[in-house]
Amino acid sequence: MRGGLTIQYHVDGELIDRGEATVSVDDRGFRYGDGAFETCRVYGGRVFLWDRHRSRLRRTCEALGMADAVPEDIDDRIDETLAANGLSEAYLRVSVTRGVQPGKLTPDERVDPTVVVYVDSLQRGGTAGDPVWDAPAAVERVRTRRVPDAALPAGAKTHNYLNGILARLELRGRDADEALMCDTDGCAAEGATSNVFFVEDGALRTPELGSVLPGITRETTIELAERAGLTVETGRYAVERICDADEAFLTNTTWEIRPIARLGEREVGGGPVTGALRAAYDELVERRCYGG
Amino acid sequence: MRGGLTIQYHVDGELIDRGEATVSVDDRGFRYGDGAFETCRVYGGRVFLWDRHRSRLRRTCEALGMADAVPEDIDDRIDETLAANGLSEAYLRVSVTRGVQPGKLTPDERVDPTVVVYVDSLQRGGTAGDPVWDAPAAVERVRTRRVPDAALPAGAKTHNYLNGILARLELRGRDADEALMCDTDGCAAEGATSNVFFVEDGALRTPELGSVLPGITRETTIELAERAGLTVETGRYAVERICDADEAFLTNTTWEIRPIARLGEREVGGGPVTGALRAAYDELVERRCYGG
Repeated sequence: MRGGLTIQYHVDGELIDRGEATVSVDDRGFRYGDGAFETCRVYGGRVFLWDRHRSRLRRTCEALGMADAVPEDIDDRIDETLAANGLSEAYLRVSVTRGVQPGKLTPDERVDPTVVVYVDSLQRGGTAGDPVWDAPAAVERVRTRRVPDAALPAGAKTHNYLNGILARLELRGRDADEALMCDTDGCAAEGATSNVFFVEDGALRTPELGSVLPGITRETTIELAERAGLTVETGRYAVERICDADEAFLTNTTWEIRPIARLGEREVGGGPVTGALRAAYDELVERRCYGG
Repeated sequence: MRGGLTIQYHVDGELIDRGEATVSVDDRGFRYGDGAFETCRVYGGRVFLWDRHRSRLRRTCEALGMADAVPEDIDDRIDETLAANGLSEAYLRVSVTRGVQPGKLTPDERVDPTVVVYVDSLQRGGTAGDPVWDAPAAVERVRTRRVPDAALPAGAKTHNYLNGILARLELRGRDADEALMCDTDGCAAEGATSNVFFVEDGALRTPELGSVLPGITRETTIELAERAGLTVETGRYAVERICDADEAFLTNTTWEIRPIARLGEREVGGGPVTGALRAAYDELVERRCYGG
């Protein structure tokens, strides 16, 4: 609720009060998690790095065999949703599912996708205030392994999110807020909703693509680091190297760049590299979204 | 539609026309595929092996950290659904999701589940007619690997079904109707919606638990085979052994026991063991559901 007004979502072309926004129980997004999504931040009324999110949404749909499922007017739907809710600082989620099809698992080539634009108010943080997170992250290594690329394409961001949910369930009763999963070989992969970075010998390191989601914030952070003259390496790393690192942080669209206070029993924390990257990220947001 | 009447589903305690049956777009079943389900057959007005399906549904919910999500009156809801639709030969699906929770990935311990009972008419086949499938299965080995147990518990039947969908998508343009997935080590695992069996040297063999869904029809078939004095072995097998087998078949609740006509280029087919098991399965259905 914003000042007594109900948030409206955009469902299949129509704005509708959040509490009334529904999909068919036969929607394949519900029956099978057969859909793609993106989570974005809106700063100053602009969807930050939307071109990149839209491209990844298309790639996910391609991976799901429904290359043309993202509607051509998706940008208009997003604009309408933000305008209707009067939101300029917001969380935004776009979901595109395979919609309702006859009751067989094998997808039909003709797709009438279900498209949902979700929004909610989310204050900026960053240079203009406090970050969206309350404190640096407390991270635990969990037993749940990251689903391998050979089973579900690592680059696809889909409604099949139980892997991350099971990872987070392992945190019950533990004072932690992110779960670090390893790949099936035991190398560090990613958090349930975040990519992980660490600083060792002055270089920035992060698990390589193929075993992690190609996070938009991950990619942006790598570019900012390279532009700042830092050495950036991607590879496969034991969790112990992150524990022993000089600095470590998580990235995702909502958190932006969030230092890791501890990983298991080991205190890690941010530092000068993390701080410089956070400042560079804030400047990028400022330049792109506030014309500053 | 049955004689002009619309099928009704049972959604959160209410019977509702299929076309009007919806869930919130904020339901975690939709956002994340965060739910459990079962597919059953109804013969003669009785849900075949419902006790086993209900037990597995509970085990899946336990694996998802919502042990008590299956409502106590689930049997009544199913009975009401069958009665309202006047169906005695039917397909039945029961879904239990984590419902709507505040917008975080980490599940809240308090669960108000969403419970959907789906039905549709499905004639019996078996001893009383033709099987539900038109012909023995044409199976292709696919590249998509079965999600390992370490990433998602193999015993859990969840709304995260993209693994099987991606496997089926590989069949596009190929004249096949089931996709055989291997595990990450390259051993035969299971079909997108079926378990696989083969007969070699007179013994019945099937991939072991841990890399396959513990199918109710798989379990029943093993019991029937043992009761008939057959040697049954579970293990890890190369796909080539199935290609070279004397007989091979698939099992699932809808298909029951379905011979494999071919696997890739190799013709396999049913035979005396498959035939005897199919007859025993039909007799079990007869005894349990028709009091015959």
